[in-house]
Order: sequence, then structure tokens, then C-alpha cells
Amino acid sequence: MADSGQVEALLQNGTVQMKAGGISGDFKVPPMKHEIKAVALHSFGGPRSVKVENRPEPGMEKGQVLIRVKATGVNFLDLMARQGVLDGAPKLPAVMGFELAGDVEAFVSTGSSNIMDIKPGDRVIAFTDYNAWAEVVCVSIDYVYKMPAHMSYEEGASMLSYVTAHLLLFHLGGLRKGQSLLVHSAGGSVGLAVSQLARTVGDVKLIGTASLHKHEHIKQAFDQLYDHGEDYVQEIKKIAPEGLHLVLDCLSGDDTHRGISLLRPMGKYILYGSANIVAGESKSFFSLAKSWWQVEKINPMRLCDENKLVGGLNLRHFLFRQRGASEVRDIMQQLFTLYDKKKIKPAVDSTYAMADVYDAMKRLHDRKNIGKVLLCPAQVPRPRTIQQQLSETNSAGAGSVNGTTNPAPSTGSSILGMVRRAFSQDQGNGHGSAPNSPPYIKVETTTTTVTNVADTNVPSGSNENL
Amino acid sequence: MADSGQVEALLQNGTVQMKAGGISGDFKVPPMKHEIKAVALHSFGGPRSVKVENRPEPGMEKGQVLIRVKATGVNFLDLMARQGVLDGAPKLPAVMGFELAGDVEAFVSTGSSNIMDIKPGDRVIAFTDYNAWAEVVCVSIDYVYKMPAHMSYEEGASMLSYVTAHLLLFHLGGLRKGQSLLVHSAGGSVGLAVSQLARTVGDVKLIGTASLHKHEHIKQAFDQLYDHGEDYVQEIKKIAPEGLHLVLDCLSGDDTHRGISLLRPMGKYILYGSANIVAGESKSFFSLAKSWWQVEKINPMRLCDENKLVGGLNLRHFLFRQRGASEVRDIMQQLFTLYDKKKIKPAVDSTYAMADVYDAMKRLHDRKNIGKVLLCPAQVPRPRTIQQQLSETNSAGAGSVNGTTNPAPSTGSSILGMVRRAFSQDQGNGHGSAPNSPPYIKVETTTTTVTNVADTNVPSGSNENL
Repeated sequence: MADSGQVEALLQNGTVQMKAGGISGDFKVPPMKHEIKAVALHSFGGPRSVKVENRPEPGMEKGQVLIRVKATGVNFLDLMARQGVLDGAPKLPAVMGFELAGDVEAFVSTGSSNIMDIKPGDRVIAFTDYNAWAEVVCVSIDYVYKMPAHMSYEEGASMLSYVTAHLLLFHLGGLRKGQSLLVHSAGGSVGLAVSQLARTVGDVKLIGTASLHKHEHIKQAFDQLYDHGEDYVQEIKKIAPEGLHLVLDCLSGDDTHRGISLLRPMGKYILYGSANIVAGESKSFFSLAKSWWQVEKINPMRLCDENKLVGGLNLRHFLFRQRGASEVRDIMQQLFTLYDKKKIKPAVDSTYAMADVYDAMKRLHDRKNIGKVLLCPAQVPRPRTIQQQLSETNSAGAGSVNGTTNPAPSTGSSILGMVRRAFSQDQGNGHGSAPNSPPYIKVETTTTTVTNVADTNVPSGSNENL
Repeated sequence: MADSGQVEALLQNGTVQMKAGGISGDFKVPPMKHEIKAVALHSFGGPRSVKVENRPEPGMEKGQVLIRVKATGVNFLDLMARQGVLDGAPKLPAVMGFELAGDVEAFVSTGSSNIMDIKPGDRVIAFTDYNAWAEVVCVSIDYVYKMPAHMSYEEGASMLSYVTAHLLLFHLGGLRKGQSLLVHSAGGSVGLAVSQLARTVGDVKLIGTASLHKHEHIKQAFDQLYDHGEDYVQEIKKIAPEGLHLVLDCLSGDDTHRGISLLRPMGKYILYGSANIVAGESKSFFSLAKSWWQVEKINPMRLCDENKLVGGLNLRHFLFRQRGASEVRDIMQQLFTLYDKKKIKPAVDSTYAMADVYDAMKRLHDRKNIGKVLLCPAQVPRPRTIQQQLSETNSAGAGSVNGTTNPAPSTGSSILGMVRRAFSQDQGNGHGSAPNSPPYIKVETTTTTVTNVADTNVPSGSNENL
């Protein structure tokens, strides 16, 4: 081939055919990888541990689906992942996020073992153990679900909360007509999913705790609301002296024994999160460890005397470690049917551009959201002043543990494991790193007044700034 | 009235009209009380703590039903009551027994609050907190249920086991089609009730543990049987590597953590007894305390990691302390419907005269029974040799704690309470009174080969001596 001059080149099927100066040749080239935008975690800690950056488009393997993401959920789980209190953390830096909705771009079939037909252009929901906060993701087909025709991407990216609620109410809680239940964080995405699914049972007394400012917005979804700060145990005992059939607790700590004390005979208490652990902006190992030890250990013989059940749900473990994929697929089908019948409808609190991920996380952290907080890769970022940008640049990197990238903790029994890791990581840093909040930008968001969709079919929308 | 001479007297409506020597008068007399035979507990301990004796017929109060007993169940609970390891023990001496079937002799209505029409001659089942092992009992109408037309008294006096099984499977366990379960003491009355009720759900994999000699008799009622003595955990893991949906444990102690370890994600372990406590003929406080401390305390956050539920059932607490009467009434109605449809049929192991109560207790204690052991007041006692009678007389009173009547322990949290009482009572007596077995008479009993009644409608009977 000539050293200089015009070159004709044609790329076909991964082969480049080139002609130059009368000489031609074929060259195999590696498949071209585009760059995609993604939100990656660089160290465990505060919000600045997270960066929006360009990364190579993920490579596909057999049985995987390549999806262009339209919306991806921001969950409390992500705050915990960021703070390094989830077990089985990935090697850093790693793309964050556990659920998404988008369009199929490609699918590498395994031949026989495919659960469903997937083709480019299909609108799908997917669950993944990290990697969802990106423009493009690769997900095992085991965790990909075709979306109902009329479901929006924003709604699709909110379905993880409904799977949690479904497992809590029906698989673990065995909720039946005429029963009563308490759920904390009633205005959150899972809390609202619980209320909608519980209404499908009929004649269920729904009690929630939520910050006072949310009560007006969610009061139609619950029969009774309390501020978590007040003595909700005494108040509930006044209206349900015989106790509750079901308590769903995402807080743990002190709320565990309060929840168990509220049960009536044959009642069930189910723990499905440890929100009390996330006390500050960065990880508070002290509150984490306190939570673990504060939660009362229970002798099954005591449960026998009191006729009570105590249990827990960790959906991530169930999906990705305990081979729960097929059960979750069944649940998704049931949820889609309920959606089509307008019995459920995800409440979307707000959507953010990927560049505004800090604001999205802060909204969730400050418990300002009513319903789902989402990242939408195609959304235009909010304009920033030069001062804001400078301030953000100066605080970049703050909040990471010891200022360095933290190697991934080993896997193992998650909560006990993370308490152990917490203590080992916290050495030299003191108990509970002080919150290192960046100067957050005031967020203008759209909120939805939540109504009982089972009764009204379509929730009335109202634009209000919180 | 004359001091002597003939007196004419007429008793009418509790008033005696008397005439003597031309003088007459009316005298109110207290209602005459007949004597009845009953089995009374005189001290906590071995079988000789129990005596068959004459007692005055119980007096009725408003809302109570007077029932002539035709059959009354002997439960493991009675052995525990005898040994003094149940909380809320009555003042001794006290009549034993918790369930019965018989004929209504009288009912003192409370006017408005009666749950159902009850009239003399009605065939009924009743549950009572002690007092069932007698020719005549008085029971609150809250715990009286009219029997289906074709149910025998023997079957009626076996229904407590079905209530236990119903609560375990459906209220606590939430059993659904396609699930798997393990139950211990599979040949006992509750074990067989569990198997029949579980079959009504359809496609349930039923695993049981039972003494080897029972396997032949109950194999049709279960899909898989293991001897409790073998390493059933390893065996079950071979046939159900993904784990079980439900474990029902009446043993506790070591079997608790074995049971929890066998659960699959979303699985439920439910403790409903502590048979491991009853180790010898008289109470073994050492094994009781060991049981309490050996049972692993559980952190709800661990359950969260593992996606498991742990719970307990104490039917006596539920019925008599936790206002569960109306729920149990609903359950009884469902059970009667299933009985009428021939979906359930109590397996009666053997019936005994009241005078043979020792033999009845021993049969249960030695785990010889397959299905229900009953006392039938009208049954003729087994003939005894003079030597047997002498031997029984000589050993009377043996087995009581410290040889004296034991005052009733205070009520309170039952199992924790009984461990505390155990230690205080055991002082000066050493740990675990040695069994003081009377010379038991060989029992000739009728046993039933248990079949799946849901499939066959009528179990095939076979007379075999165990």
C-alpha cells in the first residue's frame, strides 16, 4: 500500500476493504464502539463520588439485550450503593442504577433458551445489578420485560417499586380483604405502589407515615396518615386497638420493635430496607452499626407466644442471587394486567437530565419526592450560573472515603457484612463522616397529587412546586 | 311443721312444697347438683399426678352451654399442661382437657349477644381452656360450634388439630398452589390435618418426618417421609435443592435452625409447639430451658438479607387471650364445609375410657398414635388384674414436684415465663425429675391407615396393633 494519497475504504461486516494506488486489501477491524454518557461511582461517599462521564458503549454477550435508555429510576438503594453500604459492590468506577425503560437496539440470542421474542425497536423495562444510569445498557434477557402499549418510559422505569410492593403484600404479607396495614415513607415510590396494590384487594385499612408536607398530596391514597416524627404507635393504637395485620418497614432501627409491637395476633412485620442508616449525605457507619445492634433480636418462641411473624425482603438478593427471576417475571405480568385495567399507575415525582443527577439524588435524600424520581438521558440539563459551576468544580471529589478510590468490598451476608466493612473502613476517619454537601441548586420540579387510581382510573394532575 | 310423721313434698321449679300434719309451706332449695366423673390434675408432674374422680357437676353462668361429653381429645398440650410447662395454669386440682364433642343439655342465654341458636339436644364441638376431660362441661358459647349432621363425636373432638393446621397453612403460611412444605410429627393429629388441608390447595409437595414404624400407615398422605432421627435436612436438600416454601415445626430446639436453613427465598418457618421439651414422663425443666436458649435468636435484618419469614402459633393464646374466637368460628365453618365435601376427615387413632387415661397419655407420649387419641366417657374401661390395680394404687401421687401439690404458676409470657418458673421450681429437686413411670398396661388399640381423603373420600380402615 502507498504511504500517501487517497484511500478508498468500505466497512462491511466488520471487515474494511481498502484500495490505494492500485493495491487493495481486506482488514478485520474490532467492532467500533461508540461513546455513551453514564453516571459512574468513583468512590463510596457523598454526592460528589458520582460523576457524569463518557464511557465506551457496553459490549454484548449471548443472551443479552442492548437497550437505549429513555428513563432510569433513582432509588433509595442508589443512595445506599453510593455510600458503600450495599454488599456485593462492583469494582469502581462503576455505572450506578438498578432499573430502566427504553428501546431495544440489539439482542444476541442464545438460540433455545430465550424466554421471549425480542427484536430491535421493542419498548422494554429492565432490571440490572448496577449499570442502569447510562444512555445505553446491556442486560440479561432474564431481566427484560416488554412494556404494555400505553405505558410511558417514565412509568416503566418505576416498576421496580411495584415488584417490591407485590412481594411485600402478597408473597410475604399474604394480605387479604378486611385487613389493616402500616407502611412507612408512604409518599415514596414503594409506599404509593403499596397503597395502589393494597386497594386491589378491597376493604383494606391503609395507614402510612410521611413527612407532614406530603400529607395533602397523598391523603387520597391512604385512610390515615401520621408524621413519622410524632408518636405514631400511640396514635395507631387509638384507632386500631386490636393491632394491625401487616407492618411494612423500610426504616429499621427503632422502628422495628415499634412495628412488631403494633401487630395483632397473626400479624406480620416485614422489613425491606434500612433508610434510618442513611442519616447524612455521606455514609454514617455509626448509624448503620447502631441500626444493626439496635434492632431487637427475636426468639422464635416469643413469636409463638404472641402469634406473630417477622420477615424481610431484599429484592436485589432475590433477583440476582437467589434465582427469583422467573417469579419476578410472573409478578411483572400480573402488574402489566393491573396497569392495563388502570388499577395501578406509577406516580412520577420528577425527571432529571443525567447532568442533574446530584439534584435527583438530593431530592430523594431529603425525602422531598412524592413518587418516583427519574433520570432521562435525553432531557436537557438545567442551566447553571458560572458561580454554581465553579462551586461544583471546587467541591468535586469531596465525600469520598479518605479521599481515595475505595476497592470493592467483598460479597457476603449483606447487612452484617456491611457493618463489618463499615467498622474497618471507618478507621482513621472517625465515626460518621460529616456531611459534605455541595451547594445544591434549587430544583423546580413537577409533582403529582396522588389519587386512588383503582377508584378514579386517572389521577388528577396538579403542578406544584415543593 | 310437726317434728315427726309423714311429710308430703313436691319439688317444682326449684321450690319444695311440703305438707305435714295439716301444715304446709314452700321452701326454695338450691338446684341439686349431680356428681360427674372427671380427670383432674392434682400436681404438676408424671402420669400419676392425674386422677379420675367424682366432682360436682359444674354450675352454669349466663352465656354458657352445658354439654354432656361424648368424646374429648388428648393432645400433646395436655402432656405439657400435666408437666406444668404451660403458662396460665389453673388452681389445682383442676379438670384437664381442651376440646370436646357432645350433646347440649342446657344453655343460659344472655339475651341479645348470642352468636347462634343453641338448644338442648344439639350436637356440638367445644373448645375450652382446661375442663374438657369430664362427663359434663360448661363452656362459653363463644367456643361452641354446631356439628355437621354426619360428623361423629370422635371426629368432632378432633377438630382442634384442624384449626391449628388451618391457621398454620393459610393465615400464617399463606400456602399456594405449587408450593412445598415440611411438617414434623407427620403421623400426629395436626400432621395429618396439615396434609389433608394442604391437598385442598392442589399441587403441593408434602414432606413429613415421622417415626419409621408409622411410614407404612401414612405414606399415602405425604409425598416424602423421613425418620426424624436421620439427617432429614441433607435428604430434603437432595430432593428440593432450591429449598422449601413452608416449614411447620412443633419440636423447636435444634429443629428450629434446621427448619430455617431449609427455607427457600420468600419461605416461611412457623413454630407451633415445643415437643422437644417433653423428654421424659415428668417435666424436664433442663430440656425446657435448653430449648429456650438453644433456639437461635434472629435479627430481622438477617431475615431481610435472606428473604425469609419466621413466626409462631399458640392457638390457646389466640383463642382465650387474644380474642381470636370470631376468626376461629370462621375457620370452623370453612372446615365443616370441607368435611361435608369429604375433603377432610379426622383420623382417629384410638379411644379410651376415662379410667384408662394413663394409657391414652402414654400412647401419645410414646408417639405411638397415628391420628387422634380420645377419651370417651361412656366407654367401658379395660379389665385390670388385681396386681395391676395394686401397683397403680401404690404409685399414686408419685411424679408430683417435691411430692406436694404445686400452686398454680402466675400467668405471663408463656414460654419465657415457664422457663423462669422452671428454674425456681426446680431448685432442691435437681434438673429434670427422673421419669416415674407407672407399670403401663399393654394397650390393644384400633388404628387407621390414613389415605388422602381428598382423593379417595373414605379412608380404608384396617385393624392393626401397633
